[in-house]
This record gives sequence, structure tokens and C-alpha cells, in this order.
Amino acid sequence: MADRNSPVGVFDSGIGGLTVAREIIRQIPDEPIVYFGDTARLPYGSKSKDTIIRYSRQIIRFLKTQNVKAIVIACNTASAYALETVEKETDVPIIGVVRSGAHMAAQVTRNGRIGVIGTAGTIKSGIYGDTIRQFKPDAEVFGKACPLFVPLVEEGLWHDSVTEEIASRYVSELKGKFIDTLVMGCTHYPLIRGTLRKIMGENVTLVNPAYETAIELKNMLREQGLTCEKTPEEKYQFFVSDQAEEFTSFAKSILPEVVKETKKIAIEEF
Amino acid sequence: MADRNSPVGVFDSGIGGLTVAREIIRQIPDEPIVYFGDTARLPYGSKSKDTIIRYSRQIIRFLKTQNVKAIVIACNTASAYALETVEKETDVPIIGVVRSGAHMAAQVTRNGRIGVIGTAGTIKSGIYGDTIRQFKPDAEVFGKACPLFVPLVEEGLWHDSVTEEIASRYVSELKGKFIDTLVMGCTHYPLIRGTLRKIMGENVTLVNPAYETAIELKNMLREQGLTCEKTPEEKYQFFVSDQAEEFTSFAKSILPEVVKETKKIAIEEF
Repeated sequence: MADRNSPVGVFDSGIGGLTVAREIIRQIPDEPIVYFGDTARLPYGSKSKDTIIRYSRQIIRFLKTQNVKAIVIACNTASAYALETVEKETDVPIIGVVRSGAHMAAQVTRNGRIGVIGTAGTIKSGIYGDTIRQFKPDAEVFGKACPLFVPLVEEGLWHDSVTEEIASRYVSELKGKFIDTLVMGCTHYPLIRGTLRKIMGENVTLVNPAYETAIELKNMLREQGLTCEKTPEEKYQFFVSDQAEEFTSFAKSILPEVVKETKKIAIEEF
Repeated sequence: MADRNSPVGVFDSGIGGLTVAREIIRQIPDEPIVYFGDTARLPYGSKSKDTIIRYSRQIIRFLKTQNVKAIVIACNTASAYALETVEKETDVPIIGVVRSGAHMAAQVTRNGRIGVIGTAGTIKSGIYGDTIRQFKPDAEVFGKACPLFVPLVEEGLWHDSVTEEIASRYVSELKGKFIDTLVMGCTHYPLIRGTLRKIMGENVTLVNPAYETAIELKNMLREQGLTCEKTPEEKYQFFVSDQAEEFTSFAKSILPEVVKETKKIAIEEF
């Protein structure tokens, strides 16, 4: 049985969720984490709801074998498609990046006009709009799928004229809607925050759901008496379904000192 | 049991293999085809050899349930990583795009300097170089991974300044090697042939392995007495592991009139 000293499970389709893990480590540095990246089946953003739910169930079964006390769905697409289904089936608390990001966007907007950028799956689901309106019923939410951002980030073009050109095209229609808040609705996007900031200008607030998720997790663990009191020796563990070495090397660029090795598991067997 | 009137199985990680199916349909229009695109697990180009072999085995088991008389691996990454293993395990002939493309490159080069562009997996495997040198031992082969080409093609930017800029960066080092032949070692790349032609200039021969594969298939069926004599009513069938509707709609841009519907199957169960 999991107890307060058990780890928090964090999962994503691949490496993007490391930006969420990074925020958790910054804000609650005593909490042990088991991270899983589904690198054999990424990306999730272009896949269907059924498939994403099936994959999420397998990952949750795996995380349960690691005795997790809570689960963070660090993938926007999986949060959008699977959270509602899997939270009913699972006996540990589950939080997803979408709700945290939506909550913050509803709080910070002044004119009630909010843009959301994400993968095709996240945008098609309309989940950010639905969730933002739970907090702020009169909000107007404009979504835009940006399928090239993930490959551009993974190619290392974080600060590059091509990324800037593609970003300009993607967000031009959102600028035309006079939004004052933009949700970075995919875990890779904080890595090109500088480019997005430059294009959107200083008057648009960029919301990073990873940051908000870490705060929500911190509060939830405290409320439920699940705050870690005795950090285990092996504090951070990383698992993937493929390409363990490549994962470790990319992960080091996001979380230096934290990722030492990554284990590969056969996720389909869970 | 499969006989000469049975279909040819063609598989790919997704839609790219449709450029191979298109060439088969052009060159041997009487042959029935069963196509499978592994859209739930694409892309293959960034995954490991073990994973690609496991996926290929599942797909071949599925294609066998469709009673195929021969199999074409229309995916360069799967050809590179899995062909050698699976052809030994399977009782129908299997051909892959890599060998056909390599053979043609070895024939058309004048100065023996050949460039190959493909996914990270295909280039890392070194398979094109190894195979080209089987046909032309003194060939010098220069590989370059181009991970952004597939997402750019799938985003519809077939003729676009961004694709041109990215292509220029990718191939600039190949131009510096004075190649006279360039193998488009990924099934998506023929769709940006115009951009590649513009950047490489008229003196570099572009080799399209899809075209060569269709010729090899035609010859192989003839030699083995497997040429179709009585085309079945349902001539072309398309299966995917996810996103059947999106597949149909993209497929129509490559194969109008041919793709009417696509069935979704659970490939993990094979």
C-alpha cells in the first residue's frame, strides 16, 4: 500500500512532461517522483480518444506497481481525453495539467479573451475551453493546433528563425482575436516561451500549466495528509517504453543533475 | 492458403507508404492490395530496432490473416531495422523499399558519391550505405537525418518557404560532398520532391525508392508465378491502428478514387 512517503507518479507521452516534473521538483523538492514517458508510442497529440484512454490505463497500471500515492497526467492530450475516465477507475488521486492551466487562465485574464495553443488532439477536444468556462462562464476561448512545435523543439530549434516564422503563422489568428492571455497547452511549449513572448508582445500573459500543476499537487498532498516526511534514497526514477539512452540525454538538458539513468519497460504488458 | 489471386500486403508506420502503394497501382494495376498503416504508433523513425521488429511482426501476423501472397515493407525505417529478421520467419516473399532504392542509386551514380536523406532511425542504421555497397563496393555514401520533413509534409507545407529553408539546412552538408545522386529514403519525401529538386539542382539525380520497389515487386511476382489473373471485387483495402477517418481524408490527396474507406483494427492483439 502507498503511504505518504511513497512517490508521486508523473506520466507523459515522452519527454515533454519533464517540464512538469521540473516544476514539481522546484516547488516541492522533498517529494519522490516516478516518471514514465511513453516514447514507444509518442506522439499522443495526433491519436484518438479511445487509443489515449487505453494507453493511459496501461500506464496507470504500471505506476501502481511502483506504489505511487498520487498521479499527475503531465500530458495535455492525455489530460484532455483520459482524465475524466481514469480518475473514476483509480484509487489514488489523479490530477491533470489541463485543469490547473485552465484555472489560472480564468483568473488572470482581464478582458475574458483567452487563446490556447496545443496539439491537434488537445485543441480538437475543446477541453481547455470547457474547463476555463467552469471557472469563468463568460470567457471566450480561441484554440489553435500547432503540430510543428513539438518536432521543432525536439530538433533543438528553441531559438530559431524558422520556429519564429511558424509561430507567427500559428498565432496570427489568435492575435486578431485580441486575446490577453495565452495558455501554452502542450508541455513542450514552455521551451519556446521566449519566441512566443516575442511574437505575442508584453501585453499578453503566457500561462504555463506545468507551473500551476505543481502548485495544485502541493496543495492536494497537504490537504490529504500525503506530504512526504522521509525522502527515500532513490528519489527520482525514470522509465520509458523505448529509447532509454536518448531520453536520458535529452532529459539532462531539462533536468541536469536529476536524471541519471532511465529504465525501459514493455508498457503493452501492463 | 494464399494463391496468385490473393492480395499483396503493403505496410507502413502511417500514410507515407501510400506513395509506394501509388507506384504499385500505376505499374501493376491488376494487383489487389491490402494496406496497413500503424497510425496508433507512428512515427517509426525515432524508435529503436527492437521496437520496430516487434511492431513489424505484429503487422505481418495481421496481414497473414488477410491471406496475402507477398508483403512490401513500404516504411524505410522498418525495412532498415526489421526486413532481415522477418523475412527469415515468414513463408511469403517480403521486399522492402531500401533494397530497391539502394540498387537504383548504385546504378545511376556517375561519380560514386551518393547522398541519402531519411528519418533518424533509417540514417542511424546505416542500411542504405551497406546495401548500396553490396551493389557498388566503391560507392561513398553520405547520410543525413531530416526529422522535420515528415511533420512539414503532414502539415501540408509541400511547397513552402519554411520547408525550403529547413531543406537547405539539411542538405547543405550533402552538397558539400559533391554527390551526384540523392536517395529520398523516407516515403514522405517524394511529396516535397519539387523543393528538393530546386535545392539540389538539375545535376543531382533524385532516386525514389517507391518507384523502384514497385518494379521489383512486379518482377518478383512474375518470376514466382504470382501475377494476379482474376482481380477480386474488393481490390484495395485499407486498415489502420487509429484515426481511420483522418487517414482516409489524407489518403485521398495521394490516391484519389482509390481510398473509399479505412478500417481500424487493434494491432496489439496480433
